[in-house]
Amino acid sequence: MELEFLGTGSGVPSKIRNVSSIALKMLQERDEVWLFDCGEATQHQLLSSTIKPRKISKIFITHMHGDHIFGLPGLLSSRSFQNGTESIQIFGPKGLKKFLETSLETSHTRLKYDIEFVELNEGMIFEDEHLSVSCFTLIHGVPSYGFVIQERDSIGHLLPEKLKEKGIHPGPIYQEIKKQEVTVLPDGTHVHRDEVTGPPIKGRKIVICGDTKPTKDIVQQAKDADVLVHEATFTNKDLQLAEDYNHSSSHEVVRLASLANVSQLLLTHLSSRYNQSDLEQELNQLKSIFHSVQYAYDSFKYEVK
Amino acid sequence: MELEFLGTGSGVPSKIRNVSSIALKMLQERDEVWLFDCGEATQHQLLSSTIKPRKISKIFITHMHGDHIFGLPGLLSSRSFQNGTESIQIFGPKGLKKFLETSLETSHTRLKYDIEFVELNEGMIFEDEHLSVSCFTLIHGVPSYGFVIQERDSIGHLLPEKLKEKGIHPGPIYQEIKKQEVTVLPDGTHVHRDEVTGPPIKGRKIVICGDTKPTKDIVQQAKDADVLVHEATFTNKDLQLAEDYNHSSSHEVVRLASLANVSQLLLTHLSSRYNQSDLEQELNQLKSIFHSVQYAYDSFKYEVK
Repeated sequence: MELEFLGTGSGVPSKIRNVSSIALKMLQERDEVWLFDCGEATQHQLLSSTIKPRKISKIFITHMHGDHIFGLPGLLSSRSFQNGTESIQIFGPKGLKKFLETSLETSHTRLKYDIEFVELNEGMIFEDEHLSVSCFTLIHGVPSYGFVIQERDSIGHLLPEKLKEKGIHPGPIYQEIKKQEVTVLPDGTHVHRDEVTGPPIKGRKIVICGDTKPTKDIVQQAKDADVLVHEATFTNKDLQLAEDYNHSSSHEVVRLASLANVSQLLLTHLSSRYNQSDLEQELNQLKSIFHSVQYAYDSFKYEVK
Repeated sequence: MELEFLGTGSGVPSKIRNVSSIALKMLQERDEVWLFDCGEATQHQLLSSTIKPRKISKIFITHMHGDHIFGLPGLLSSRSFQNGTESIQIFGPKGLKKFLETSLETSHTRLKYDIEFVELNEGMIFEDEHLSVSCFTLIHGVPSYGFVIQERDSIGHLLPEKLKEKGIHPGPIYQEIKKQEVTVLPDGTHVHRDEVTGPPIKGRKIVICGDTKPTKDIVQQAKDADVLVHEATFTNKDLQLAEDYNHSSSHEVVRLASLANVSQLLLTHLSSRYNQSDLEQELNQLKSIFHSVQYAYDSFKYEVK
């Protein structure tokens, strides 16, 4: 699992930061890429990445502001043009279906695949045997959501010592034993998986928030997450602006992350009013409150371990 | 008057060519910029130009395909964000108003200025004392239009010799004489403007076509134009593709330009299947048919003399 930031600016694009989009690449795990938000020119950002539009199987939209959705009609068209034929699921707030259907209809766009729209409501929105996605509400003046991507715990590693004790030698039988709860050997012996594997491997937890003021619920939802992706539109000196525009300041966010005990905080949706040096200075202060914090930038990749 | 090509590709953006948009800069003439088409990321292209979104006073949309309109909602939002407060006129085919109003409404966008929509019909769509714009239909499977921007002829240059004969010496009186048909001098002499100016200066004519097959009407409409901007999605070897997809091949277009006796033909909307060397080869052949032809490229500027 790797996060790739395609756009880390806020409101309007700048030469350095495009408007919002984040890819969650799960190519090894499920040969899929999921997109969180799709600001204008997200498809242009993909041209400088290794992500193929046809690999994008799900798109999650945090809220309906233009800098988070205006890239959708173009991306969906190009996905079709570049021979994407598998259906796509799009999760988003009320209004998204109308926006997209009108855009595609008025532009005479005929996609080569189906779209399944899922209107967001708090709670579980997707689950399969590998992971689940739930969403929760934020505070941003318009309906805005955060997403919790929770991998399921997986079977622990095989313990060669234990297998050896039972007279089982390395070979294809190892994978068989791992796959099922009980394996019967040719000699009739029953091998229980939990006797020959270590403790379950904890599933990873990624939390991606849309634009928002800081809320207590974020602390709950992000509890012990491996990664929290959160907006920090403003620095601490513009606390009042953050308050006025329903956004967060970086100091508020590191405090949330610290309370939630997340392993890594990645800050995005940065106002173009700050230059590189402003952000470096700010980061030094942030690290004194919560060490594992980093500003994202366009094309920044973060492997979730 | 200067044309600036903001996007010269077709269908989907590539690393080299963005999707369609052309700016007609008339900053000296009327402190305005007009836009023709607005594909996704047109506002991003503006970041590398000197054009300010708030200077854009009119936008003309040739047809409703996504690669010509998906940049509109973002551009209009950013124009507002960057303190554009003057109203804007948007000329386009049926469907454009619905697309834009739905995009702005569902994204909770409140612009600081008014939009006046004008639905295209063949004929005159705008005129004032300096110029007129008319539009004509093309053939592209969906309604598609070309635009004729015709500057009015202007008063000829003052002839210093003639003025001298009448005993008039250089000074502010020169501009006065040029401004009105008859000027009465302090000594009571009547100076008729047409006696002291050269022949009227012919207004410039610019023709910008949307996607289309070649049509006879284009020859009529572009007759003696200073510049014809025309699509050439395909080269001559892909004539059949041009036919199948309601587009033009470059050879067809140079023949049109030659028949229309235009001073300069600028080709745009180029398929990404051709590399630089393909286009250079093609251009050599084109020049043997019609010398004043050029392929446009992103950020290419052409001064209309």
